[in-house]
Amino acid sequence: MRIGFIGLGNMGAAMAANLLKAGHEVTAYNRSADKVAPLVAQGARAATSVADACQGDIVITMLANDDAVEAVTFGADGILAGLSAGAVHVSSSTISVALAERLTAAHSEAGHGFVSAPVFGRPEAAAAAKLFVVAAGKSAAVATASPIFDAIGQRTFVVGEAPEAASLVKISGNFLIASVIESLGEAMALVGKAGVDKQQYLELLTSTLFDAPVYRTYGGLLARETFTPAGFAATLGLKDVKLALSAGEQLQVPLPVASLLRDRFLTLLATGGGDLDWSAVGALSAWEAGGKPPA
Amino acid sequence: MRIGFIGLGNMGAAMAANLLKAGHEVTAYNRSADKVAPLVAQGARAATSVADACQGDIVITMLANDDAVEAVTFGADGILAGLSAGAVHVSSSTISVALAERLTAAHSEAGHGFVSAPVFGRPEAAAAAKLFVVAAGKSAAVATASPIFDAIGQRTFVVGEAPEAASLVKISGNFLIASVIESLGEAMALVGKAGVDKQQYLELLTSTLFDAPVYRTYGGLLARETFTPAGFAATLGLKDVKLALSAGEQLQVPLPVASLLRDRFLTLLATGGGDLDWSAVGALSAWEAGGKPPA
Amino acid sequence: MRIGFIGLGNMGAAMAANLLKAGHEVTAYNRSADKVAPLVAQGARAATSVADACQGDIVITMLANDDAVEAVTFGADGILAGLSAGAVHVSSSTISVALAERLTAAHSEAGHGFVSAPVFGRPEAAAAAKLFVVAAGKSAAVATASPIFDAIGQRTFVVGEAPEAASLVKISGNFLIASVIESLGEAMALVGKAGVDKQQYLELLTSTLFDAPVYRTYGGLLARETFTPAGFAATLGLKDVKLALSAGEQLQVPLPVASLLRDRFLTLLATGGGDLDWSAVGALSAWEAGGKPPA
Amino acid sequence: MRIGFIGLGNMGAAMAANLLKAGHEVTAYNRSADKVAPLVAQGARAATSVADACQGDIVITMLANDDAVEAVTFGADGILAGLSAGAVHVSSSTISVALAERLTAAHSEAGHGFVSAPVFGRPEAAAAAKLFVVAAGKSAAVATASPIFDAIGQRTFVVGEAPEAASLVKISGNFLIASVIESLGEAMALVGKAGVDKQQYLELLTSTLFDAPVYRTYGGLLARETFTPAGFAATLGLKDVKLALSAGEQLQVPLPVASLLRDRFLTLLATGGGDLDWSAVGALSAWEAGGKPPA
Repeated sequence: MRIGFIGLGNMGAAMAANLLKAGHEVTAYNRSADKVAPLVAQGARAATSVADACQGDIVITMLANDDAVEAVTFGADGILAGLSAGAVHVSSSTISVALAERLTAAHSEAGHGFVSAPVFGRPEAAAAAKLFVVAAGKSAAVATASPIFDAIGQRTFVVGEAPEAASLVKISGNFLIASVIESLGEAMALVGKAGVDKQQYLELLTSTLFDAPVYRTYGGLLARETFTPAGFAATLGLKDVKLALSAGEQLQVPLPVASLLRDRFLTLLATGGGDLDWSAVGALSAWEAGGKPPA
Repeated sequence: MRIGFIGLGNMGAAMAANLLKAGHEVTAYNRSADKVAPLVAQGARAATSVADACQGDIVITMLANDDAVEAVTFGADGILAGLSAGAVHVSSSTISVALAERLTAAHSEAGHGFVSAPVFGRPEAAAAAKLFVVAAGKSAAVATASPIFDAIGQRTFVVGEAPEAASLVKISGNFLIASVIESLGEAMALVGKAGVDKQQYLELLTSTLFDAPVYRTYGGLLARETFTPAGFAATLGLKDVKLALSAGEQLQVPLPVASLLRDRFLTLLATGGGDLDWSAVGALSAWEAGGKPPA
Repeated sequence: MRIGFIGLGNMGAAMAANLLKAGHEVTAYNRSADKVAPLVAQGARAATSVADACQGDIVITMLANDDAVEAVTFGADGILAGLSAGAVHVSSSTISVALAERLTAAHSEAGHGFVSAPVFGRPEAAAAAKLFVVAAGKSAAVATASPIFDAIGQRTFVVGEAPEAASLVKISGNFLIASVIESLGEAMALVGKAGVDKQQYLELLTSTLFDAPVYRTYGGLLARETFTPAGFAATLGLKDVKLALSAGEQLQVPLPVASLLRDRFLTLLATGGGDLDWSAVGALSAWEAGGKPPA
Repeated sequence: MRIGFIGLGNMGAAMAANLLKAGHEVTAYNRSADKVAPLVAQGARAATSVADACQGDIVITMLANDDAVEAVTFGADGILAGLSAGAVHVSSSTISVALAERLTAAHSEAGHGFVSAPVFGRPEAAAAAKLFVVAAGKSAAVATASPIFDAIGQRTFVVGEAPEAASLVKISGNFLIASVIESLGEAMALVGKAGVDKQQYLELLTSTLFDAPVYRTYGGLLARETFTPAGFAATLGLKDVKLALSAGEQLQVPLPVASLLRDRFLTLLATGGGDLDWSAVGALSAWEAGGKPPA
């Protein structure tokens, strides 16, 4: 398939590479052009502009936040103007429910397909083509995009025809991860202050009821108290918690744990930890309990 | 081994039955005597009193709360008076850190061993001898008790020589379960109000990062909105959250998620849900979002 | 002075009437024109458009939210285009810090003065010219606007030259009111459930340490459990709490009580109380404690 | 009247002195005897024991916590044993609802009167006989005690015949003070980080809706960031918040602001601020926002 790929950060670069490996023709675009070269070395064509990346059957966006997706979509020479009738825009980054709704309406009016297909997994999983894809959109558009999902992930979950549902599921999933970080952080502050070894404690948890990747990954970071380099920065964590809160406001669903997380992330940022891995939020409890600030 | 077993609720009866199956001599005691007969049918001897259950090498208590453990231990004709020198008291229920400390001191003075050995698992796991045991106490006492742990559980974690550490780990584990219930409840209220199917949502979670028994068990209860009969009643959930908060006060560790849970459980109890399964706490979010109260 | 007045809700109509009483020439504009007639009966001139209200020395906006202020200011034929060089825009409604900053920049570029001058007080206080005005802006612009402040309020506080400071102070003040509502609501749920008379309790509080209008006004509403008609609707309360949270995000200041209030307001709205007075948020505690929902 | 006075801390010493000034015969007792001498110099008789302080018509306890009141009441040679039939025990310190209930029952059985009569006011108010007294108990007992209330306070509120109601009102009042400290602390962190002067901000608040002693006193401490010497130590603040939470548990009333305060006080204590004035809890927000820890 002829695929445009916009956004070559840690995640995007790995996903685009896997599309190449699967035999797709990839035209890659990134705002700072230096990120494109490594992908060209793997067989991609460098796009000269966003519009240039919109010549194929599908264009994928994997960008940092709503503003970036809005800019490349609605901007002059953006995706909305550049995409052929019948082509499909697949948005794989975590975007707000409100933007997913706006993109759905705009692409529908322009005669394009639109699929929101955010992914679960950190850069290692993206590199290994082991992402989990959560997709929503009209069935025809989802069908068009499914070879992409097969190439980048280990499993795809289709959660309906309304693209915003996929965004909401992704947002809620990140909220659940953050809530694991917070509650594990509190529990480790508690047992740690009593002298229990944190690594042994984590092994106990993950050998029993809490035998899941989310506890192993984030529990490991918390037990080792290692928050650099960031796999996913605290500033992005705050962004995602705010997306959950916004969705809650739109749907009128109070989210007290998300509210707590918002304040936790603000504390982390205000005290200098914005560039740490977002798991550092879980180290605030130990700090409050008389320990050291996360670093 | 000659074992006394005090407390034949859902959990205790199953654990005692597994001790019999493993070939131990069990003398069983329960406050309301009708619970003893089924166990006698399986080969146990009925104790006529707490003291009568203290004639062997070990006495195990599996009781509802601190008060019950205090009553059978410190009361007239209690364990402290009845146990032989060198025998071991194994406390397998979830007790406070403060009581674990008090039992440690009292038994030490009386020349007994004391092991705090709470277990993770619901009644089904107890019946299947698949509990996880968290044990702490002097090595000799733990060694004496280990055949018991082998008979009731699938794995034992020894977390040190201070019995209160095992109690604290158990308390923190129950707190982590409750925090999963709360955060899943919030996430399901959010995606559910947007029309996402809760069962499918849960399958997605448990197929990916959240592939752990705690999500499958409690997520299932939340997705089905089935809170009776209670595997573990909300009143007990509140008791355990309060144990976490008390431990946090003693150690000076703030626990904001536990504080939230305390208020959630109080709301559930005050609105008539004290006898529901404790997972009903996770259904309060959907109620607040305009849905129905848990039932 | 020749004053344009845009926005004739409960508050604006009363403020404009007081400007007329003080001898100013008022040209009044409201989106739904029927609100203008009563003011014309008191001597105002009806503006035919926003631009028509911008012919004098000053134009005041007293509108429901950021969107409304943005529309009349930046829209075609809006204030920015209509105001003469050297004239002053006084924004008296509660707007976000971000919008205050944007208005400051835009008016400065256009050669206008800009003063953010939100007011404290409910409609009764507006009618009685007893508002408290919090103003910020360049000294010359504030000086130009001060006869207006004298006509509508009992006292003016100038909090600096940066207009957003006045908006922030107003936002924080509304947050403080809401936090009094919440904490009083919790305290009344507690003593009320023990049988203490709420009116007597309130008299005790307001005779002692809590002898302030905020306790008398909102405590009275809570003690009487009377939330209609709304002096200030819950939907507006939520809006203001969100302004506090947004300001906190911009400045990186965590605000846990504001986060709690956000969730409380969402609960109130989701359960049908959006049109109640915002003090109804304080009645949620009694509901959670087993009482009735606010109505 | 012949009055025994037990507990000569900052508050008690001032109250006992005012009883002497009002012409009462005071027999004073304190655990550490050095506190008695200054009062003897003002005309009191030094009691040789708790029992010795129980020879008159009334005995007042003004002690640090439940444990101290329990010790002097139920201990060997305590108040319960020492008080004559028909004499009255007035408990003026802040005690738990549960202890108030226990004292009521015990004194009733012993043929004594019992009045719970906690006071509002800091040491300065106690010295000036300007306390507010909240009293509850059987009318006859309250009538017996009223000359005392007249001597130590500016006004007495009788809130019913159940002594625990007075304790609960006092506990709830301290909770309301703490909630003012927290919310003011958040507001000041917010406006302060934007450059608004905290003293001017406080003047604005206390000139308008927040014109009450609680805002002037605690707002002043927060604006000056002066937390030593402590008028009321953070450790005591935590104790009182825990009394509110316990009362809420007993009555099944969730108290989210009190829960937040519990965690705040624990943070303050764990980071070394236990001896600071309890208003230091309000300075944690500014610390979290990137400022300095309270000192």
